[in-house]
Amino acid sequence: MAEVMTGLKRTHYCGEPRLSDVGKEVVVCGWAQRQRDLGQLIFIDLRDRTGIIQLAFDDHTDKEIFGKAFGVRAEFVLAAKGVVRERSSKNKEIPTGEVEIEVTDLRVLSKSETPPFEITEDSKVKEELRLKYRYLDLRRPDVQDKIIARHKIVKIARDYFDQNGFVEVETPILIKSTPEGARDYLVPSRVFPGSFFALPQSPQLYKQLTMLAGFDRYMQIARCFRDEDLRADRQPEFTQIDLEMSFIDEEDIMSMAEGFVKTVYKEVLDVEIQTPFPRMTYAEGMERFGSDKPDLRFGYELKNLTEVLKGTEFRVFAGAVSAGGSVRGINVKGGACYTRKEIDKLAEWVKAYGAKGLAWTKLNQDGSSSSSYEKFLKEEEAAGVRSALEAENGDLLFLVASDKPQVVFDTLGALRCECARQMGIIDESRPNLLWITDFPLFEYDEEEGRFVAKHHPFTHPNDEDLEQLETNPGAVRARAYDMVLNGNEVGGGSIRINDPALQQRMFKALGFTQEEAQERFGFLIDAFRYGAPPHGGMAFGLDRLVMLMLGCDSIRDVIAYPKVANSGELMTASPAPVDQKQLDELGISINLQEETKE
Amino acid sequence: MAEVMTGLKRTHYCGEPRLSDVGKEVVVCGWAQRQRDLGQLIFIDLRDRTGIIQLAFDDHTDKEIFGKAFGVRAEFVLAAKGVVRERSSKNKEIPTGEVEIEVTDLRVLSKSETPPFEITEDSKVKEELRLKYRYLDLRRPDVQDKIIARHKIVKIARDYFDQNGFVEVETPILIKSTPEGARDYLVPSRVFPGSFFALPQSPQLYKQLTMLAGFDRYMQIARCFRDEDLRADRQPEFTQIDLEMSFIDEEDIMSMAEGFVKTVYKEVLDVEIQTPFPRMTYAEGMERFGSDKPDLRFGYELKNLTEVLKGTEFRVFAGAVSAGGSVRGINVKGGACYTRKEIDKLAEWVKAYGAKGLAWTKLNQDGSSSSSYEKFLKEEEAAGVRSALEAENGDLLFLVASDKPQVVFDTLGALRCECARQMGIIDESRPNLLWITDFPLFEYDEEEGRFVAKHHPFTHPNDEDLEQLETNPGAVRARAYDMVLNGNEVGGGSIRINDPALQQRMFKALGFTQEEAQERFGFLIDAFRYGAPPHGGMAFGLDRLVMLMLGCDSIRDVIAYPKVANSGELMTASPAPVDQKQLDELGISINLQEETKE
Repeated sequence: MAEVMTGLKRTHYCGEPRLSDVGKEVVVCGWAQRQRDLGQLIFIDLRDRTGIIQLAFDDHTDKEIFGKAFGVRAEFVLAAKGVVRERSSKNKEIPTGEVEIEVTDLRVLSKSETPPFEITEDSKVKEELRLKYRYLDLRRPDVQDKIIARHKIVKIARDYFDQNGFVEVETPILIKSTPEGARDYLVPSRVFPGSFFALPQSPQLYKQLTMLAGFDRYMQIARCFRDEDLRADRQPEFTQIDLEMSFIDEEDIMSMAEGFVKTVYKEVLDVEIQTPFPRMTYAEGMERFGSDKPDLRFGYELKNLTEVLKGTEFRVFAGAVSAGGSVRGINVKGGACYTRKEIDKLAEWVKAYGAKGLAWTKLNQDGSSSSSYEKFLKEEEAAGVRSALEAENGDLLFLVASDKPQVVFDTLGALRCECARQMGIIDESRPNLLWITDFPLFEYDEEEGRFVAKHHPFTHPNDEDLEQLETNPGAVRARAYDMVLNGNEVGGGSIRINDPALQQRMFKALGFTQEEAQERFGFLIDAFRYGAPPHGGMAFGLDRLVMLMLGCDSIRDVIAYPKVANSGELMTASPAPVDQKQLDELGISINLQEETKE
Repeated sequence: MAEVMTGLKRTHYCGEPRLSDVGKEVVVCGWAQRQRDLGQLIFIDLRDRTGIIQLAFDDHTDKEIFGKAFGVRAEFVLAAKGVVRERSSKNKEIPTGEVEIEVTDLRVLSKSETPPFEITEDSKVKEELRLKYRYLDLRRPDVQDKIIARHKIVKIARDYFDQNGFVEVETPILIKSTPEGARDYLVPSRVFPGSFFALPQSPQLYKQLTMLAGFDRYMQIARCFRDEDLRADRQPEFTQIDLEMSFIDEEDIMSMAEGFVKTVYKEVLDVEIQTPFPRMTYAEGMERFGSDKPDLRFGYELKNLTEVLKGTEFRVFAGAVSAGGSVRGINVKGGACYTRKEIDKLAEWVKAYGAKGLAWTKLNQDGSSSSSYEKFLKEEEAAGVRSALEAENGDLLFLVASDKPQVVFDTLGALRCECARQMGIIDESRPNLLWITDFPLFEYDEEEGRFVAKHHPFTHPNDEDLEQLETNPGAVRARAYDMVLNGNEVGGGSIRINDPALQQRMFKALGFTQEEAQERFGFLIDAFRYGAPPHGGMAFGLDRLVMLMLGCDSIRDVIAYPKVANSGELMTASPAPVDQKQLDELGISINLQEETKE
């Protein structure tokens, strides 16, 4: 039978007692980190979220209390009353290490079986086991600290935007499905059998309606949902810091967002961020870094070698060039230390980005060199490539050719980051922040055979590109902007269309008939008929922002109860089958004959 | 073609300019409240979320600008630049009424069709129309102010709990279905066809796991979901201020909650609340007020007349008493003003509470009286009833008899509130707050033929009732407490079971086999094996708290985008049918043959 706390009330957290408290009677509560039985002496390290304090039991201790202390095992929950005293042998590694508590009352509030892993920092436990017992994993101080830091970041966000006149408006979670973009999670309705709600991929439509309603500045820490196959840094449910402003332009939103990032870095990490952030167009990001979220903490910039190689007879390069593609390369400075085996491994690795091969030249320090392609080139072509890449002894050159320019960008964009990581040249001490602007408004969807909105159908085109909306949609730029932190997109947004006529042109460019547009977005189209202010906004990916700020490897580290790659939760074993009665009430049945996986 | 703001940047909100700004050049933006064309003069009232400012156009105004102003209609979106000047005829009713803006530049940023209703305060528009055009309804200052007040209340809640060491932890929205209590919304999983997530009815299990994880003090403004038929004050999705604390007892949670309510009333309404709040047991609430959420702002207390009437030959009363029921009454002081017709209406009204009839006696000021039942009683019985109810001339007595005591409580509990409302005796100026304690742990579910948890299966029984858990479950009280504001439950919670053995007894008392308990709550049962601290918490119904604080009639008034009684959203016409392709991907089909409505 568990004991209770009756008569005891916590006076201190475990992390609090100091030399100045010596002589005070205190009550502390927590979990036994470990118990050390030295015969006449027993020590228990008691842990709570603030730290660890040593409880001491000796020959002055009441026999019954001593007996209880004897029986304590790891993770037992205890309340202890006693007097703070100076420790004879001090522990410099913890803030309470100069004192201990001479225990006069001890209650075993709850016993514990031996946990499946030890509750210590940085223990090497398989993630699957950690997540199955997430409530134990979260007891580890380093894991707990991340969730507490997330709380602080969220609190600072709310304070900052509140001080800047933003109103937090809660938008619905049960909304209408408007398929465009990622897959919606659907929620069957019992009251309207055959009808469904959807879970929001973002509060996009509602925040725009909130601007139409005159709220002027909206913010929400919003829960969002995407029924997509998960990548390492994606969750089926995730959280956005979601903003929208009226009567503004890009500059207002970007400086508001910069102010937030500056504030949160200062308050959480005591790091000064310079504002305004540098800006780069999408086109420049691609050309120089092969990415719309370039990491500028290192070089290895892309060089276009198409001109140098335009006359080559080497079929791999010539074929790409003649098919309208390109040949580009990077110079991994000092990369001659790569072995042939390591290079082959990278050649295999880049295939995931669509590259058919990876051409390379290694310039050794002694002036010798080896290359996968130079033998196929004319001497002046090989020299031209070296020169374009500013090659020096000790460098490693990588070239990628493809008839699809995007494949070249994606491959070299990823490769330069991977090489920088492997070379250990990234300065992790300072965050690198910039804006990417002038995104394309559309991207061509091969599968659907039409242009689709790169961000969403409400993004405002650049005014100077408006006339090309119908004639050359691929060239139209958007009034959209992404914030990039250390090579990751941490936020993005746009100015929205507030002119109903322009919105109609946009729907048409996306291939929607007027009827289709009305069916999907009718309520929004209607709303714009009654006076829509110029507006725009952005959203930060909270999980990713916190992950990057705290230097974590995975967003699962900064989510209290994350899901894993197959989008299930290991702790509760969900999703799970449900009772037939529940399905009957919803008027749906399971239809496993049709195999539905793609 | 809509104009743009290029070259203009808002300097002031519409509600800001004052006499001290006279002579300043300003830029304001907003919606045209109305345009008055006086020939040589045009006035436009421009509205934003902060107020209204008058724009003036006269013979000094540039002709083109004057022409634009001439074309402005209600709800056009405008940006105006101009100079603040003193008004010749002042408007004392608005804070900016002493000044106007002499406009030098005007942009019509967006036109508007004539809206379906006028955007003014307190306009009498049918709620259905208002909700269909919610984005217009929200432009009305009184509607907008409520959403802004809600933002403030939420902000204060976060600040208060943050200052008190609570950590905001986000718990998942896609969780495991654990049917017990209300119906879960289900979410089919594409990745695991045939399996479902559920949307949380509350974060109950996760907040308890968060305590087991050592977070000590948890809070979240949590989105919750119940697939229930809606009553006036219920929404399918709603918001809770959700708390949980470790190493505490009821007193800690109640005083923490009182501190929050005191703070929020002071900061939002400048009302001082006395703490601690009065407390009343559930049993006393029923006995005296027929309610577990009694409104103490007026009397009309219930009196038990069973003893007085135990020997009566009047079959209606005698039958109730002999069947183990009761006869109880209230005295509506001064209620003799009720007409016979009004009394009949109440007699009809109470049927919703299960009462078969409503017995009454009206004591006129002149000493005469009329009664529906006194003629069937012995003289001393009738006198005994009058005496027990302290009847005086001018009063109105209501009696209810039933073999089911709960029917008597429910009927008179509701009737006393309805009569107090009709009599206009409720002092709305001061909030009435109290705690109800010692709830029954179980209630008997007639349909299921078993005891079910009144709160949830993790509620801790009162220690002194523990031995009756198996032998007399109906008599066991819970360590549960509700906060009552003006006769409404605004929050409730309990101390939770932290002893695995006691939790097993609880599951058994609820009729679960060990296997059933393991299947439903296995992960929680497992968690408790590794050291569970004593813990408890509560949740405030945010929507209802805001509604009561702001004196609204409906929670829909304090929700930006509410759903209506059939749980749909009128603005977006959701829920709605979805594409067959979406259903195929989820491996479900619609099964309308089985009619599923209850």
